[in-house]
Amino acid sequence: MAGDNKGKVIGIDLGGTNIKAAAVTNEGKLVTKLEWATEAEQGVGHVVQRLQSIARAVASEAGWIWSDVAGIGIGIPGFLDFQAGVVERAVNIGWEQVPILDIMQRELGVPVYFDNDANAAAIGEAWVGGGRGFRHVVAVTIGTGIGGGILIDGQIYRGANGMAGEFGHMVMDWGHGHVCNCGQTGCLETIASATAMLRSARQAVERGETTALASYDTESLTTRLVIDEARNGDAVAGRIVRHAMETLGMALSYIGNALNPERIVIGGGVSKAGDVLFSPILTGFQQGALSRVQEACKIVPAELGNDAGVLGAAKLAVR
Amino acid sequence: MAGDNKGKVIGIDLGGTNIKAAAVTNEGKLVTKLEWATEAEQGVGHVVQRLQSIARAVASEAGWIWSDVAGIGIGIPGFLDFQAGVVERAVNIGWEQVPILDIMQRELGVPVYFDNDANAAAIGEAWVGGGRGFRHVVAVTIGTGIGGGILIDGQIYRGANGMAGEFGHMVMDWGHGHVCNCGQTGCLETIASATAMLRSARQAVERGETTALASYDTESLTTRLVIDEARNGDAVAGRIVRHAMETLGMALSYIGNALNPERIVIGGGVSKAGDVLFSPILTGFQQGALSRVQEACKIVPAELGNDAGVLGAAKLAVR
Repeated sequence: MAGDNKGKVIGIDLGGTNIKAAAVTNEGKLVTKLEWATEAEQGVGHVVQRLQSIARAVASEAGWIWSDVAGIGIGIPGFLDFQAGVVERAVNIGWEQVPILDIMQRELGVPVYFDNDANAAAIGEAWVGGGRGFRHVVAVTIGTGIGGGILIDGQIYRGANGMAGEFGHMVMDWGHGHVCNCGQTGCLETIASATAMLRSARQAVERGETTALASYDTESLTTRLVIDEARNGDAVAGRIVRHAMETLGMALSYIGNALNPERIVIGGGVSKAGDVLFSPILTGFQQGALSRVQEACKIVPAELGNDAGVLGAAKLAVR
Repeated sequence: MAGDNKGKVIGIDLGGTNIKAAAVTNEGKLVTKLEWATEAEQGVGHVVQRLQSIARAVASEAGWIWSDVAGIGIGIPGFLDFQAGVVERAVNIGWEQVPILDIMQRELGVPVYFDNDANAAAIGEAWVGGGRGFRHVVAVTIGTGIGGGILIDGQIYRGANGMAGEFGHMVMDWGHGHVCNCGQTGCLETIASATAMLRSARQAVERGETTALASYDTESLTTRLVIDEARNGDAVAGRIVRHAMETLGMALSYIGNALNPERIVIGGGVSKAGDVLFSPILTGFQQGALSRVQEACKIVPAELGNDAGVLGAAKLAVR
């Protein structure tokens, strides 16, 4: 269908290590995808070139001719100026004041849109993942930190200066706990991120606690192993995961009472772990969410895995 | 200007004790207002009658002829079914399943809109009060409880089932503190409401603490007096107000990081008290709000006092 560009968009997920791109239909069907190294160390110009190349390459892989592509969306790990179309700062890839939308549009001849990576993942899950079919969706990603995104009436909500959904920096342990990257102490992500669970596990081993975790050497221990051992009934691993996820659930109760969403979608590499995560999350949530808020809201796992970012980015270009 | 109904709406604030009504222009200018007793004990039909009568009366007071009125908005202290136009439950006035919009429209021959009272006050402040001119506004009311409302892109956000903005039930003292009306323990409103500050003051007097508060008898002590004594330098009153307002500020930091608003408007009877309230609110907020969130957001006092409810209700009818 040459010349029919209504159904064809491209989503790009720009990460510190890899660039992912997907050819996606208007209805959210992923046709094909590619993953290249970002090579951020070779400078802004190089990465921008690679973004253009991967877009053309994935369209070609999908069997699309370029003039059929209706638009491109990009998820970017940084602070964005939406008015100007400029990446203000993206620490992981060393970008500062990059007018990415103008550059890409000039070179590719199609409309280009962007959002930050957490919002892109939230949009993806709300579109065709754990939140599909619902208007008010909150997405939370458990990873190195805790990311978040808010969809209101199906639209991403960015707030006054793009900071809406920064759930990871709700302070859950006032005046105590670990110092966070943001400079505060006791932030949710210092307790409930994958990184935080792993740190707690390592500390338990170092303290000499009796646990299956001690059978791994410190370097090879991962959050996934901690969760697996918790599921296997290891008491120390269980305590660590339970504390982290109950605290996440308590933070979600704040989000629940404030935003009264229909779905809270939990994503990130560990989110497929099932009850061992979701049971304490629910315990925490039920401790603080009003009963009418609980009635209206289900907490569900993300469904798109690593594709949430490219799918959400693609959605940005669906008009 | 008979026949010109573009600029004329009526806002009604239905409370447990009083019904307030105001004739308001399209631009948010309050022309005139009335306040009558609610007389809720005389039953639903009686109160509905009074709502109709006060609407006609305030229009007449304003010198408007009835056919000039474009619409009526009502703020109601309860849970509403927005789809059906029904008051599900309003405990203070003993209402249950009252199809108020249909009844009012049939009797008065003009479009009638409603929202809950906290949202109406938030809409009023965002329209012509402390949040005017801003798109993303959070309003918090310190009263018997802690009420709230969220405006996103200038529109009130109600959430999945009308519960959005229930900030008063964020648990700030997990597993401790006072039991709240909602059944939870340690809710923000058990710590930072006017009622809670007054309770803390009475307890301090009962414990025999050395304080100017002891010079009032228990019955005549009010939250306003507690705040006055805090401002006068009384250490005990100061500690009580500071703890309550810092805790409020900490809760606002959650709201700030989640919603990234441009303005947080603090209302309620005590909100004119100035620095003695706002300085600890800011201290709490700064402890937990990300710096970019703080940059984008000012915490300001409400400006409309008791008129916020009728003005916000009137705004519901402005098309």
